[in-house]
Amino acid sequence: MEPTGLWLIGARGSVATTAIAGLLALRARMVEPTGCVSALPRFDHLGLPGWDELYVGGHDIADLALDKRAELLTESGVIPHRVFEAVRPGLSDVDAEVRPGYHPATHQGSQADAARRLADDIGEFAARNGLARVVVVNVSSTEPVFPALPEHGSLTALEAAMAVPGRTVLPPSSVSAYAALRSGSPFIDFTPSTSIRLPALEELARAKGLPYAGSDGKTGETLVRSTLAPMFAARALNVRSWSGTNLLGGGDGLTLADSEHAGSKLASKGRGLATLLGGDVTAPLHIDNVPDLGEQKIAWDHVSFEGFLGARMSLQFTWTGYDSSLAAPLVLDLARFVAAAHRAGESGPLGWLGFFFKDPVGTDEHRLSEQFAALSAWAEAR
Amino acid sequence: MEPTGLWLIGARGSVATTAIAGLLALRARMVEPTGCVSALPRFDHLGLPGWDELYVGGHDIADLALDKRAELLTESGVIPHRVFEAVRPGLSDVDAEVRPGYHPATHQGSQADAARRLADDIGEFAARNGLARVVVVNVSSTEPVFPALPEHGSLTALEAAMAVPGRTVLPPSSVSAYAALRSGSPFIDFTPSTSIRLPALEELARAKGLPYAGSDGKTGETLVRSTLAPMFAARALNVRSWSGTNLLGGGDGLTLADSEHAGSKLASKGRGLATLLGGDVTAPLHIDNVPDLGEQKIAWDHVSFEGFLGARMSLQFTWTGYDSSLAAPLVLDLARFVAAAHRAGESGPLGWLGFFFKDPVGTDEHRLSEQFAALSAWAEAR
Amino acid sequence: MEPTGLWLIGARGSVATTAIAGLLALRARMVEPTGCVSALPRFDHLGLPGWDELYVGGHDIADLALDKRAELLTESGVIPHRVFEAVRPGLSDVDAEVRPGYHPATHQGSQADAARRLADDIGEFAARNGLARVVVVNVSSTEPVFPALPEHGSLTALEAAMAVPGRTVLPPSSVSAYAALRSGSPFIDFTPSTSIRLPALEELARAKGLPYAGSDGKTGETLVRSTLAPMFAARALNVRSWSGTNLLGGGDGLTLADSEHAGSKLASKGRGLATLLGGDVTAPLHIDNVPDLGEQKIAWDHVSFEGFLGARMSLQFTWTGYDSSLAAPLVLDLARFVAAAHRAGESGPLGWLGFFFKDPVGTDEHRLSEQFAALSAWAEAR
Amino acid sequence: MEPTGLWLIGARGSVATTAIAGLLALRARMVEPTGCVSALPRFDHLGLPGWDELYVGGHDIADLALDKRAELLTESGVIPHRVFEAVRPGLSDVDAEVRPGYHPATHQGSQADAARRLADDIGEFAARNGLARVVVVNVSSTEPVFPALPEHGSLTALEAAMAVPGRTVLPPSSVSAYAALRSGSPFIDFTPSTSIRLPALEELARAKGLPYAGSDGKTGETLVRSTLAPMFAARALNVRSWSGTNLLGGGDGLTLADSEHAGSKLASKGRGLATLLGGDVTAPLHIDNVPDLGEQKIAWDHVSFEGFLGARMSLQFTWTGYDSSLAAPLVLDLARFVAAAHRAGESGPLGWLGFFFKDPVGTDEHRLSEQFAALSAWAEAR
Repeated sequence: MEPTGLWLIGARGSVATTAIAGLLALRARMVEPTGCVSALPRFDHLGLPGWDELYVGGHDIADLALDKRAELLTESGVIPHRVFEAVRPGLSDVDAEVRPGYHPATHQGSQADAARRLADDIGEFAARNGLARVVVVNVSSTEPVFPALPEHGSLTALEAAMAVPGRTVLPPSSVSAYAALRSGSPFIDFTPSTSIRLPALEELARAKGLPYAGSDGKTGETLVRSTLAPMFAARALNVRSWSGTNLLGGGDGLTLADSEHAGSKLASKGRGLATLLGGDVTAPLHIDNVPDLGEQKIAWDHVSFEGFLGARMSLQFTWTGYDSSLAAPLVLDLARFVAAAHRAGESGPLGWLGFFFKDPVGTDEHRLSEQFAALSAWAEAR
Repeated sequence: MEPTGLWLIGARGSVATTAIAGLLALRARMVEPTGCVSALPRFDHLGLPGWDELYVGGHDIADLALDKRAELLTESGVIPHRVFEAVRPGLSDVDAEVRPGYHPATHQGSQADAARRLADDIGEFAARNGLARVVVVNVSSTEPVFPALPEHGSLTALEAAMAVPGRTVLPPSSVSAYAALRSGSPFIDFTPSTSIRLPALEELARAKGLPYAGSDGKTGETLVRSTLAPMFAARALNVRSWSGTNLLGGGDGLTLADSEHAGSKLASKGRGLATLLGGDVTAPLHIDNVPDLGEQKIAWDHVSFEGFLGARMSLQFTWTGYDSSLAAPLVLDLARFVAAAHRAGESGPLGWLGFFFKDPVGTDEHRLSEQFAALSAWAEAR
Repeated sequence: MEPTGLWLIGARGSVATTAIAGLLALRARMVEPTGCVSALPRFDHLGLPGWDELYVGGHDIADLALDKRAELLTESGVIPHRVFEAVRPGLSDVDAEVRPGYHPATHQGSQADAARRLADDIGEFAARNGLARVVVVNVSSTEPVFPALPEHGSLTALEAAMAVPGRTVLPPSSVSAYAALRSGSPFIDFTPSTSIRLPALEELARAKGLPYAGSDGKTGETLVRSTLAPMFAARALNVRSWSGTNLLGGGDGLTLADSEHAGSKLASKGRGLATLLGGDVTAPLHIDNVPDLGEQKIAWDHVSFEGFLGARMSLQFTWTGYDSSLAAPLVLDLARFVAAAHRAGESGPLGWLGFFFKDPVGTDEHRLSEQFAALSAWAEAR
Repeated sequence: MEPTGLWLIGARGSVATTAIAGLLALRARMVEPTGCVSALPRFDHLGLPGWDELYVGGHDIADLALDKRAELLTESGVIPHRVFEAVRPGLSDVDAEVRPGYHPATHQGSQADAARRLADDIGEFAARNGLARVVVVNVSSTEPVFPALPEHGSLTALEAAMAVPGRTVLPPSSVSAYAALRSGSPFIDFTPSTSIRLPALEELARAKGLPYAGSDGKTGETLVRSTLAPMFAARALNVRSWSGTNLLGGGDGLTLADSEHAGSKLASKGRGLATLLGGDVTAPLHIDNVPDLGEQKIAWDHVSFEGFLGARMSLQFTWTGYDSSLAAPLVLDLARFVAAAHRAGESGPLGWLGFFFKDPVGTDEHRLSEQFAALSAWAEAR
């Protein structure tokens, strides 16, 4: 396939850094593409962009360079030592393609100005590297829930409001989504933030004929839930309660233990379970910040269910994963699949990518195996 | 549908007793059909035999009457007190339809004689109750592995050997399967015993145009395994080891802690995992007899897997279930589905019933969601 | 020993009902004293009140009679069917000794009036049954945290305030504790409510020469924590985080999921862990209301610790218990031990009973084995 | 304290290498003594040998040098990278003090010859380094169970048999123990092998006035068991079954999955539980070899217990540890404590060191807190 750009919002975060380090290691044939769905044999015929056809740049408001972040991830067990040593120079090269992100607290002028600058960054990246297209992926920290505003309802109203200096009509994730679309790029949201999920932005995507996907990468507890819940349904077993606790370290734990940021994350997790099981299941859910866990994420779920003649039974599981290790290959997968969809002229929400998301746009299907069947069917039709 | 017989091999065991008590309670509309797959709305149009169109009889070598067994199951928490009180008289009626089972240690004469007597029991049951058909289901205790013999290779050779007085050419489960087929009845094996899985018996089923299904009901640990394993495969995650321990009380624990009987059970469990994950996964598996657990079965599985850049992660689960509560509704389901297949003229191994079995005949598919899709597709095609 | 009264505040609740039903079953020699610490051989020489020397009465604001409550507990698996049938008449006899409890919402007049009435109830119970002493035990629902008031500082100030009609200077648990002391009875708090833990009430206990004990029965997660935490300390292992989740059904879950009531419970749990491990351990803790669990309580704890050279390790446990089954025998134990202490002339906080409590008065020792050693030492000294 | 030798049987194994690397890091003040019981403040007054007063040598039949083994342990997460880099030269120095171990398959001559050579190695090590004493610790791989022989009954008979060329009257661990005693050194067995536990060797220890301790370091599952089991006993709860599964990688998994070697390990684990709970508890136990776990060891235990009125409850735990990280500091502790005991003239089995062992010599006490109390009492008496 032609040279393809991967533009990461939050390019110096843990997920982005792991994805970039991994891409460099894959290019160097140091590692197998474990965890990369797009590398499964069933997708071989699609002609997805190869590991050395992907060019990476991005936005970030953080200053810590990619190689420094990678060093921390190496200490945490996410990146092996030998991989880190090998990709360190390449990380610095990518870091040179990272531009300052947008943050309302430090920005002067209107949000329209900010968006224009972000879109220009993407356009220059594409031109500089001779790219056929750039796929923009948001992997920045989860935002607090942003209030709904009337201006979100139409593109005209939104752009008028964005032009007002000092007015904050969009959260940063949505400014990034707007800028991506304005630069002619497909957009993917790997977080539960608002981003493209506003009528005005969906209108813009349609107007520009651009595909988009999201939201909130399905990497851990929800992945297991969307696998197990259909089992109970298919066996006519009656789930009475599904209780969950998440222990997170790292920056993610810090962000999500704050209830305002957790709001969108918990809502995103909850929507899936309700759809899978029906709405009357008791489902308490917590996210705790446990700094000593570092990059590790531990989830415990307890499912209480009823069988024949009302017999009471239970299933509990503990998931111990590295969120960045689970998310990073999916970021590469999404960039590759969306690049192919864009090349094929697809536009609007890509429901067949629901497999990757906790709260998928363009589909109501949450069952993992049905989502994988949809992805496979899309691929077979090509 | 027309009156249909359900003939249970092991009719006074825990699974059979729970199925019968539950059927009586369903008839009386005392309980919901929780755990009954065949009661899901998607199967409504099939015209499966209703709860009051199913007539139950069976063979057993045990003398403990159904109501006594049900009393024990009530104390164990499998059958609710109020259900037991209500169905007690009905249990005695069914018990009157139970005939002595075949056991080599007590049988005089040839296995041909034994089979003839068993087949006659089934035929008389059908005639006495005016049944359109009888579905035979083996729910007796797991047998020790029976040695392969040359006579198993063809029906002619088998029947010659069966005619020799005192010769034991078949294990009891296979004598029952033979008798079922001779009586013109479809046969289902809910256990991992040999039963119908011999070339000679498959030949007989073909010759008689009868459908059959099996083997080894997928009710607990393997149910969860066949749900979770495809998740790892679809996500390109590399499962390194899948370790399991089963704690069983009751007669089942006693039988299976004996290594000879456990042989077929462990083999049946292992085959599924190897197919689901590929053959190179370390997968130690144990069954322990823990009498104080009574009817409860507890399974702990630990899955160690590798993600992007070799990150080491794990998933562990604990399943706490009542085997009889999980198995009983499936026995009713199978009887209903196979009755429909027989009415429709299907014959040979029913691969679309793989959803119900650890070691399905007629299919290599072990993934639960694909198995459910196959069952659903069969139903939609009717 | 002489006839001894056990006066239960919350006499119709789950814990009280289980204790009473169990006492009746023990008297009838239908059951073993499993879970009764005071029945261990090492306490045989103490001459504790025998099962038929304990007379039970109490206060409650609920109307549901003891036999009705016991019926619900039988359905929940806490009381066996045969026990329920046998003790049902005895429960009605005890129910006749239950008097209306105090509740500010329904009470007319001053808190002094209320306390006088409560104390009279206890006194009449003692007289009616010819009791040498009455031990009062609070097993009512956990109260919301009650604000500290200056009047709590001295008995004089408190009694002056209590005399003001319509003034609520004490929470109900403290009114009960005051009444117990005024009636000359030792007092035990099995809940985390305020009750006797006010300077003015401690002054009253001293003045009357009465012993007391509390607070908050250690029955589940905290029992395990106070057993395991010393292991890490003795082995010089560095606990980094200890995360916990509690799933409760029943009325308890409903009460404690309300954050105001949970306040005192979570504080009580947290104090123990901080003392056991030092104050710098991350220790998130949740209580969730999961009604379908009924009387069952499930706790999951995840302990992350560091060993030699900083190696990261973990221990996780799941506790599945019936709170009432765990608490009830301890209520009988406490009544027996405190009766013996009262007979022996002990007064003030009984620190050697810390073994029974999450938040023990009269001691800072939280380690279970040291608490058991203290209890044993007290017994040996007698 | 005076310069003290630590002579390790199995000096190039994982436990020994971790202990040596850690000792070097402690000397360099690079790390805290986490996991070192002897570094707890309560033992400060004992004047135990300091980290730079311990000199290490040993025997091993393996050739892989200490720094190579340490490199593998660094990749496995047992030794941090920065520690490995810092101690690498020191490891080579210690490796120069490692002498060939004894193995019957490669040894020519009598076991008496072998023992003489081993004892000489220890004596020369002491002389070369000017050591006041050498403590010998067996940390080699678990041996198969060795048959009991009449010659084990007395020192005279044993030595006569040892003198016969080509005769194998002792397993290697016992040859090592014999050599240690003959060299005048105290002996500690950190494994479940036979070693000193033969009447003839105990006779020799007595004759030489030497202390000894063992056996089988209590580092994981049994550590937790000996902590939790007393909780059930103190609360009069009736443990019905205690089931366990151990998943081990590394060489240990390979050795112990072989049933012959596992024999002594399983027996050692089982003895403790039986003593703690009484002998009538169902307690199935497995050790599985799961190579991908590397140095990690995962144990799952399920405890089923009965409370008041027969209520059925359970506790399950999962322990995830690094055996070498847990064992290594205890090896240092034992060397230090036994050096102090030897200096103080103690001889025979040191029961007060039971805290460190699954199957302690010189005591029947298995409860962890009582064992810690015994260790503390010993220290206080000095």
